[in-house]
Amino acid sequence: MASDRNVRVETDTFGPVEVEASRYWGAQTQRSLQNFRIGGERLPLPLIRALGVVKLAAARVNMRLGALDQKVGEAVATAAQEVADGRLDEHFPLVVWQTGSGTQSNMNANEVIANRANELLGAPRGVKEPVHPNDHVNRGQSSNDTFPTAMHIAAGEQAHGALLPALEHLRTALEAKAREFESVVKIGRTHLQDATPLTLGQEFSGYATQIAYGIERVKAALPRVMLLAQGGTAVGTGLNARKGFAEDFAAEVATITGLPFVTAPNKFEALAAHDALVELSGALNVLAVSLMKIANDVRLLGSGPRCGLGELRLPENEPGSSIMPGKVNPTQSEALTMVCAQVMGNHVAVTVGGSNGHFELNVFKPVMIYNVLQSIRLIADGCRSFTDNCVAGIEADRERIGKLLNESLMLVTALNPKIGYDNAAKVAKKAHKEGTTLKEAAMALDLLTSEEFDQWVRPENMLGPSD
Amino acid sequence: MASDRNVRVETDTFGPVEVEASRYWGAQTQRSLQNFRIGGERLPLPLIRALGVVKLAAARVNMRLGALDQKVGEAVATAAQEVADGRLDEHFPLVVWQTGSGTQSNMNANEVIANRANELLGAPRGVKEPVHPNDHVNRGQSSNDTFPTAMHIAAGEQAHGALLPALEHLRTALEAKAREFESVVKIGRTHLQDATPLTLGQEFSGYATQIAYGIERVKAALPRVMLLAQGGTAVGTGLNARKGFAEDFAAEVATITGLPFVTAPNKFEALAAHDALVELSGALNVLAVSLMKIANDVRLLGSGPRCGLGELRLPENEPGSSIMPGKVNPTQSEALTMVCAQVMGNHVAVTVGGSNGHFELNVFKPVMIYNVLQSIRLIADGCRSFTDNCVAGIEADRERIGKLLNESLMLVTALNPKIGYDNAAKVAKKAHKEGTTLKEAAMALDLLTSEEFDQWVRPENMLGPSD
Amino acid sequence: MASDRNVRVETDTFGPVEVEASRYWGAQTQRSLQNFRIGGERLPLPLIRALGVVKLAAARVNMRLGALDQKVGEAVATAAQEVADGRLDEHFPLVVWQTGSGTQSNMNANEVIANRANELLGAPRGVKEPVHPNDHVNRGQSSNDTFPTAMHIAAGEQAHGALLPALEHLRTALEAKAREFESVVKIGRTHLQDATPLTLGQEFSGYATQIAYGIERVKAALPRVMLLAQGGTAVGTGLNARKGFAEDFAAEVATITGLPFVTAPNKFEALAAHDALVELSGALNVLAVSLMKIANDVRLLGSGPRCGLGELRLPENEPGSSIMPGKVNPTQSEALTMVCAQVMGNHVAVTVGGSNGHFELNVFKPVMIYNVLQSIRLIADGCRSFTDNCVAGIEADRERIGKLLNESLMLVTALNPKIGYDNAAKVAKKAHKEGTTLKEAAMALDLLTSEEFDQWVRPENMLGPSD
Amino acid sequence: MASDRNVRVETDTFGPVEVEASRYWGAQTQRSLQNFRIGGERLPLPLIRALGVVKLAAARVNMRLGALDQKVGEAVATAAQEVADGRLDEHFPLVVWQTGSGTQSNMNANEVIANRANELLGAPRGVKEPVHPNDHVNRGQSSNDTFPTAMHIAAGEQAHGALLPALEHLRTALEAKAREFESVVKIGRTHLQDATPLTLGQEFSGYATQIAYGIERVKAALPRVMLLAQGGTAVGTGLNARKGFAEDFAAEVATITGLPFVTAPNKFEALAAHDALVELSGALNVLAVSLMKIANDVRLLGSGPRCGLGELRLPENEPGSSIMPGKVNPTQSEALTMVCAQVMGNHVAVTVGGSNGHFELNVFKPVMIYNVLQSIRLIADGCRSFTDNCVAGIEADRERIGKLLNESLMLVTALNPKIGYDNAAKVAKKAHKEGTTLKEAAMALDLLTSEEFDQWVRPENMLGPSD
Repeated sequence: MASDRNVRVETDTFGPVEVEASRYWGAQTQRSLQNFRIGGERLPLPLIRALGVVKLAAARVNMRLGALDQKVGEAVATAAQEVADGRLDEHFPLVVWQTGSGTQSNMNANEVIANRANELLGAPRGVKEPVHPNDHVNRGQSSNDTFPTAMHIAAGEQAHGALLPALEHLRTALEAKAREFESVVKIGRTHLQDATPLTLGQEFSGYATQIAYGIERVKAALPRVMLLAQGGTAVGTGLNARKGFAEDFAAEVATITGLPFVTAPNKFEALAAHDALVELSGALNVLAVSLMKIANDVRLLGSGPRCGLGELRLPENEPGSSIMPGKVNPTQSEALTMVCAQVMGNHVAVTVGGSNGHFELNVFKPVMIYNVLQSIRLIADGCRSFTDNCVAGIEADRERIGKLLNESLMLVTALNPKIGYDNAAKVAKKAHKEGTTLKEAAMALDLLTSEEFDQWVRPENMLGPSD
Repeated sequence: MASDRNVRVETDTFGPVEVEASRYWGAQTQRSLQNFRIGGERLPLPLIRALGVVKLAAARVNMRLGALDQKVGEAVATAAQEVADGRLDEHFPLVVWQTGSGTQSNMNANEVIANRANELLGAPRGVKEPVHPNDHVNRGQSSNDTFPTAMHIAAGEQAHGALLPALEHLRTALEAKAREFESVVKIGRTHLQDATPLTLGQEFSGYATQIAYGIERVKAALPRVMLLAQGGTAVGTGLNARKGFAEDFAAEVATITGLPFVTAPNKFEALAAHDALVELSGALNVLAVSLMKIANDVRLLGSGPRCGLGELRLPENEPGSSIMPGKVNPTQSEALTMVCAQVMGNHVAVTVGGSNGHFELNVFKPVMIYNVLQSIRLIADGCRSFTDNCVAGIEADRERIGKLLNESLMLVTALNPKIGYDNAAKVAKKAHKEGTTLKEAAMALDLLTSEEFDQWVRPENMLGPSD
Repeated sequence: MASDRNVRVETDTFGPVEVEASRYWGAQTQRSLQNFRIGGERLPLPLIRALGVVKLAAARVNMRLGALDQKVGEAVATAAQEVADGRLDEHFPLVVWQTGSGTQSNMNANEVIANRANELLGAPRGVKEPVHPNDHVNRGQSSNDTFPTAMHIAAGEQAHGALLPALEHLRTALEAKAREFESVVKIGRTHLQDATPLTLGQEFSGYATQIAYGIERVKAALPRVMLLAQGGTAVGTGLNARKGFAEDFAAEVATITGLPFVTAPNKFEALAAHDALVELSGALNVLAVSLMKIANDVRLLGSGPRCGLGELRLPENEPGSSIMPGKVNPTQSEALTMVCAQVMGNHVAVTVGGSNGHFELNVFKPVMIYNVLQSIRLIADGCRSFTDNCVAGIEADRERIGKLLNESLMLVTALNPKIGYDNAAKVAKKAHKEGTTLKEAAMALDLLTSEEFDQWVRPENMLGPSD
Repeated sequence: MASDRNVRVETDTFGPVEVEASRYWGAQTQRSLQNFRIGGERLPLPLIRALGVVKLAAARVNMRLGALDQKVGEAVATAAQEVADGRLDEHFPLVVWQTGSGTQSNMNANEVIANRANELLGAPRGVKEPVHPNDHVNRGQSSNDTFPTAMHIAAGEQAHGALLPALEHLRTALEAKAREFESVVKIGRTHLQDATPLTLGQEFSGYATQIAYGIERVKAALPRVMLLAQGGTAVGTGLNARKGFAEDFAAEVATITGLPFVTAPNKFEALAAHDALVELSGALNVLAVSLMKIANDVRLLGSGPRCGLGELRLPENEPGSSIMPGKVNPTQSEALTMVCAQVMGNHVAVTVGGSNGHFELNVFKPVMIYNVLQSIRLIADGCRSFTDNCVAGIEADRERIGKLLNESLMLVTALNPKIGYDNAAKVAKKAHKEGTTLKEAAMALDLLTSEEFDQWVRPENMLGPSD
C-alpha cells in the first residue's frame, strides 16, 4: 500500500490508517480495500451516482429541517452533487464483495464527500472538520436505509433512462419491419416443420408484441422500485431521523431525478427485503426469454447462405471467420443471446440473495444491485446494438421465400374445410411420399378438380380467419 | 398392451390401435401412452378442466356461428362440461413429457369428448360418428391455439381461485399478529447482530407488507395471462377459423369462468411465446423469496427452547424427533421453505422452456404449465398450512424478549445525538469488553449523569423518528 | 377423515389419533397427513424402498450386535423386506412438503414396519407390542441419519439401476448411427452458417462422445453418494448407537443392494450437508445440457419436409397435428428437451435446498431427494424413449444431403493453402454475389485451372487433417 | 473515434478501418469495438493469457512441422509470449458480448501478435508483412478450435493455480480449528432447536470435510477440462491442420503450463459442446452451496453480542455500522455468501449457454468462460479472505458455550437407553414446562436416583457411539 508514497493518516473508531494523499476516501474505505481483496468488480457507477443523489437530498432536507448548519450543508451538497455528476468516480474503489449492507460504500460516500466538502471550505483532508462524515454527511441516515435507497434510485434511473428507451427503440424497429414485410407471404413453421403460411410481417409483429409486453412488464414492476427506504435508519423505525424527513427526502429525490420516487410506507420491509429488485429482475428475465427467442429466430431464418433456411439477409458487419472466407455470421444474435444467458443467471443470483435476509436486514444488497444493474445495462445495450446493427438492416430474400412457399405441402390445410381432414391428409402424404406437388397428388387421387385446387389453395387467402 | 382384455379398436391417420374398452380416449391418446413412457407426472387437473372449458366454449360459439350442427354441438357441450367438472379425469392419462405443443392432450380431449358425446347420442365408442374428434370437437381450432388457451385459463383460474385467496389469508394473519404484538418492544437485529429496538408488531408488519406486495405482483402479472390465443389456429393467422370466433370465444370463456379473459390482440406472439407464464412464474418466484425470508425468521426467532433466540413460541403440532423426546421442530417453516426452493427451481425450468421457442410455435408448453401450476398450488397450499398451523398460533415469549432487550448494548444509539457518535461508541465498547451494563459503562466514563441516562435510553422512545 | 368408518386409535407422545383400520401407519404419520395438506407429490417410491432397506439392514446388524431380540428382529426384518420390495407402498402416503428432516417419513416406515411385524407375530395393530416403532424398528437410529442414508441409497440405486443403463443404451445407439453414417459427407454448419464439410457419422460421434462423458460424470459423482450417514444418529456423534454399527450397517446395505456403499468418514457433514446430492444433480444438469443440444440438432436436421434442412428422416410415431394433415413432428426431441428444462430447474431447487442447512442438520432433505430422483428418472426414461422411438430409426436423406453439399460455397476453404486466404475469400464472395458455383467464380477470377479446382476441392478430402 | 488523432489504417476482407496508432490491434478488432458497444465486461485476463499460450504453442509446433518459416515463427513466438505474460493486456479491448465463437478475440490475438512480431522484425504496424495474422499467427488454426482451447487452458490454469490452493488454505484453517476446539463440548442444534451435544471441533470437522470433498469435486471435473480442442480447426475435422499437429500442440501446452493437457479424442464434441465447463461450473456450484452453509453457521454462531447465540467470537476487522457504535458485523461471511449467490447465478448462465449450441459450434463461448472464470476467482479470493480475515481468528466463547450446554434439555437423550423413550420425554417436557433443570424434573418424577442422573447425563460421554 501507501508505503513511502505520499500518504495521510485517516482515523475511525478502530484507529488510524494510511490513505494515499490524492484520494478523498477515509479510514473505513481503506479498511474495506484491505479486508476484501475479492474479485475486481467495483460497485456499478449508477449506484455511486445514486449515493451522491442520496447525500445531496439528505443535506438539503436536513438544512431545511434545521438539522444541518447551512455552511456545512452547502459544502456537503456541492460535494454530493459532484459525486452524483460522476466527477469523483475514481474515489469509489470498493468491490461488490464487501459487507452485505453496503455500509462500507455508504461510508465511502460519507468520507469522500466530507473530505471534499472540507476542502471546499478550506480545510485539509482527514481532519473531519468542519464537516464530519458521520455527524454531517450521514446525518439522520444509516447505511441500512441509505444503501437500499441508492439501490432503488439507481435501478429506477437506469430503468427509465436506459432500459425503456432501448426497448422502445427495438420495438419501433421491429414494428417498422412488420410493416415493411406485411405483403411477404412465407411458409409458417411449427415444431420446426412446414406449416400453413403467414406473412413475414405477421412473424415480425409477434416479435414486436413480445417487446411491447416486455415494456409493460418493466413498467408493472417499477411502482415498487419507486419506494424509498430512507428514513428507516438502522432497523426501520426511523430512530434518530426527524419526523417528516422520510417524506421530504423522497420528494427531494423526485425533484433531482425527475422520477416519481416516494417514501416506502413500511420501512421494515424496505430494509429487510429487496423483493422489489427480485421483481424487477424477473421482468428482465422475461425480456431475456423474449430476446433469446427473437434472436434465435433471426439467425435461423438467416441461416445459409445456401444450406440453411435463407429467408432473411442479415447485415454484414465484419468478416465471419478466420479460416472460412466469405462467411458472414449472425454475430449480433450471438451477442444478444449471450446477454440473455447472463441475465437469466443474474436473476438466480438476485433470487438467492433476496431469499437470504435475516430479521431487520438483508445483507446481500451489493450483489443484488450489481446483478440488476448489469442486467439492465446488458439488455439496454444489447437491444440497441441488435437494433442498429442487425434488425434495421434485415432484408427479406423474397425469391427464396417464394420458392420455399411454393414447394410446401402444408398449403393442403386449405382443403380441410373442402374435402375433410382425412382426405386432405391423403393428398399431403401422397405428395410427400412421391415427391410431387400437392396439386399433382390431389389430381391423382381424384378428390377435386384442377380449377377447384387453384381456387382453394391460395397462400394469400390463408393469412387470416374466413368470413 | 390390451392383449386379451376387453378392448376396442380406434383409428387415426396412422391406422388402427387397441384401446381398453372402458376408456373414452382414442387412437392418438393411446399412441402417446405407448410412445412416451417417461416419468409419471400427468398433466395437472386444472389444465384438464381448462381443456373442457375450451371445448365447451368453442362448441357454443360454433353453434352460434352456424359452424356446428345443434345436436352435435349440444352433445359436445355436455361432454365438455363433464370434463370441465372433473368427472372424466381418469380418461386423461397422458404425461407432461409428450409432444411439446400439447397436441396429444388436445387430441385426448377431442377423443374423450367425441366418444362421450357419441355415447350420449346413442352411438358406440370409436366410430367417430355422429361426432368426430377433429371435425366437430376441434372445430375451428388447432392444438396450437387450444393448448396455450387452456394454459392461460388454468393459470388464471388457479391464480384467482387458489393463490390470491391463500395469500390474503396469510396476509390477514400476519397483520393480526402485527397488531397483537404492537406493544412488544424487542431487540432489533441487523447482520444477525444486536441492533436498535423495534416492536415485534413492527417486525411482523414487514412480513405482512411483503405478502401485500406479493399480491400486487401477482395481480400485475395477470393482465397478460388474461389474453387467450384461441382463434390463432395453426400459426397465428386464424386460418380455418371464422372471423369473430376469437372474440366470441374469449367472451364465452369469461362467462364460464367469471374471469376477465379477452382475446389476445396478437396471436403470433400467443402461440410462439409464453412470456406471460414466465412473467407469472416470476411473480411466484418473488413470493418464494418473500416466504423463504419470513419462514426463516420465524424459525430463527422460535429457536431454542433454551439455547436459541427463543423470542417466539411456535405451535406444537407433532413430536419433533424420533430420538430426542420433548423436542418440537418448526416443521411448518421447513415445509414452506422447501416449497420455496421448489418454486425457485420451477421458475428456471419455465424460463428455459420459454426461451426455447422456434418460429411460430413454442414447444415447451406442457413443461411450462406443469411448473407454473405446481408452483401456484404449492405456494397456495403452503401459505394456508403455514398460516393455520403456525402463524395463527405464534405467541410472543414476552419474558424472554424483555430479558434480551435489557441486556442489549445497542440502546446506546439513543445517545448519539446527545454525546456524539464517537463517545457513544466508547460506552458500548467498554460495556462489551467488561461485561457490564451500558449505564455502568457510561457512568464510569463520566459522559453523562445517571438521570440523563435513564431519561435518554428508553427503548419505548426508540421506535420511531423524533419530533 | 376416518369418521364413522372402521378406524383404530394410534398414539404418540402427543396423545391418541384415529387411523383408518386398513392402514399400517401410526399416529405420527397420521398427524403429518393432517398438518401438511400441501400439494400432492408423495415421496418417491425409490426412497420408500430405501427406507425399507435401511430398516432391514439395521435390524440384521442390531440382532448381530445383540441390540435386538431375535424374534422381534426377524419380524422387523421381514416387514422391512416387504417395504423394500414395494409391497406396502400404499402405506406411505406422506408428501414431500413435510418436516425437512424427513422425520415423519422415517416414522412412517417405523410405524408401518412395527404394525406389520406385530401382525406377523400375531399381535393387533396399534399396540406397539411386542414390536415398538421407536425402540425396535428405529433402534440405534435417528431420523437425522436414517433419512439421508435412505436418500443416498435411493439415489445410488437409481443411478446404477436406471440412469447409467439408459445412458449406455443411448450411447450405443448413437455410436451405431455414427458408424452407419460414416461415409455420408455433408455440409458442416457453424454459427448456423454453411461451413466446411464433415461426415454425418462424425457429427453423431460428437453426440456419442457427449453421452460417454456424461456417463463418466455420473460415475465421478457417485463415490460421494456411496457414503452413508447411518450411525451418526441425531447430530453426527453417534450417540445411542453402538460402536461398529455404522460400518456393519453399510456393509449390510452393500450386500442387500449389491452396490459399494460404505460408512461416511465424517457423520457431521453427512447430516448437515447434502453436497453429494447437489454434485449428482450437477452431473444430471450437464446431461440435460448435452441432451438439449443433441435433441435440438436432431429436430433441426430433421426439419422440413420441404422448407427446412431436411438432412435427417425421423421416425413417424403419430399424427403430428390436429389441423395439418400429413405433418409429422419431432415429438421425441420435444419430450426430451422438456425433460432437460425440468432437470435444469430441479438442479436449482436442489442447489437452493443444499445451501440452506443450519448447524447440525440440513432440513431440505425431502425436496432435495425428490428433485434428484425425478431428474434421474426423467433422464433415464427420456433417453430410452428418445433412443427407441427416435435415434434408432433415424435415416439419412442422402440425396438431400448431397444436394446441399454441392451447392455450398464453403468448400472454398480447401483453396486456402493453395491460393491464400484473401484470394479464396474473393472466389467465395464472387460466387455468393452472383449465385454461381465456386468453380465458375474461380475460373472467372483466373486464380487456378479447372483441373486444379477439381483436384483440390473434394469434400471427401476435407474430412481430416492433411499429411 | 480516432478523428484527428494519430491513427493508422488497418484492413481486412471488408476494407480499411482506422485504428489508434498506439494500439497493436487491427481491423477486425476495431470493427468489433464499433459493432458491439454492449456492457463493459472485457474478456478476462486469464483468457487473454491463454490465447497467448495457444499462439506460442502453435508457432513452436508449426516451426517443428515445417509449416512456419523459422524467422517468422520466432517473432510470432516472442510476441505470443508477451501476450501470455500479460505485457500486452491493454491491447485486448473486446467485451464478452461479441461473436459467440470468440472469433473476434482470436483475431485480436492474431492481429496484436502479428503487428508486434512485425515490429520486432523491423516492419511497421498494419502491413501484415512479413507476419500475417491469418496466414502465420493463425496457421493451422481456426477460431473454432483456438477459442475453446484457450477456454480450457484458462480454466485449467485458474483451477490449479488459484482455486485449489485457496480451497486447501481454507481446509487447513478449518482443520486447525477442528483440532483447537476438539474439547469444547457444546449444544448441538437440529431444526434450529437444541439437540444432543457435540464438540465445537466436531462441528468444524464437518466444515473441513465439506471443503475436502469440494476439492475432490473440482479434481473430478478437471480430466475433461484437460482435453484441448486445438487441431479440430473449423468444424472438428482438422481440415487445413497437419496430422500430428493436435497431439504435438497439446504436449507443447502441457510443457508451457506444467499441466497435463492432452488433445481431445473427439474434436466434434470439443467445438460443438462445452459440457466440460458446465461440469466444472457444477463443481463450483457445489462449493458455493458448501460455503454458503459454513459462512451462515459462522455468522449465526457469532451472533450477538448479547442477544444472539454468541458461541463464537469473530475477528473485528472494521467498524460495523455508521450509526450503531460498538457493533461488529460478520462481514467476511457476508462477502462470502454474496460470492456464493453469484456463483449459483453464474452456473445457470453457463448452463443456459451450454445447452444452446447448434450443429458444429456452440456460440456461447465468451459468456461461458467469463462466468466460469469469474466464479473461480470469486471462490478463490473469497476463500482466502474468509480464511485470513475470519476463520483464522475465530475464538470459542467457552463460558457462553458452557452456559448454554448446561441449560439445555436435550441431554435427556442420554436417558433413552436407561428409562425408555417415553419416560425420557416426560422428563424433558416437565422441565420445559416448569422452567426447571432436567435433574429436578427427573427427581420429581421419581424415575431415577440423583446418583444415576449424575452418572448417566454427562455431556462428555455423549459425543460418540457407545461400546
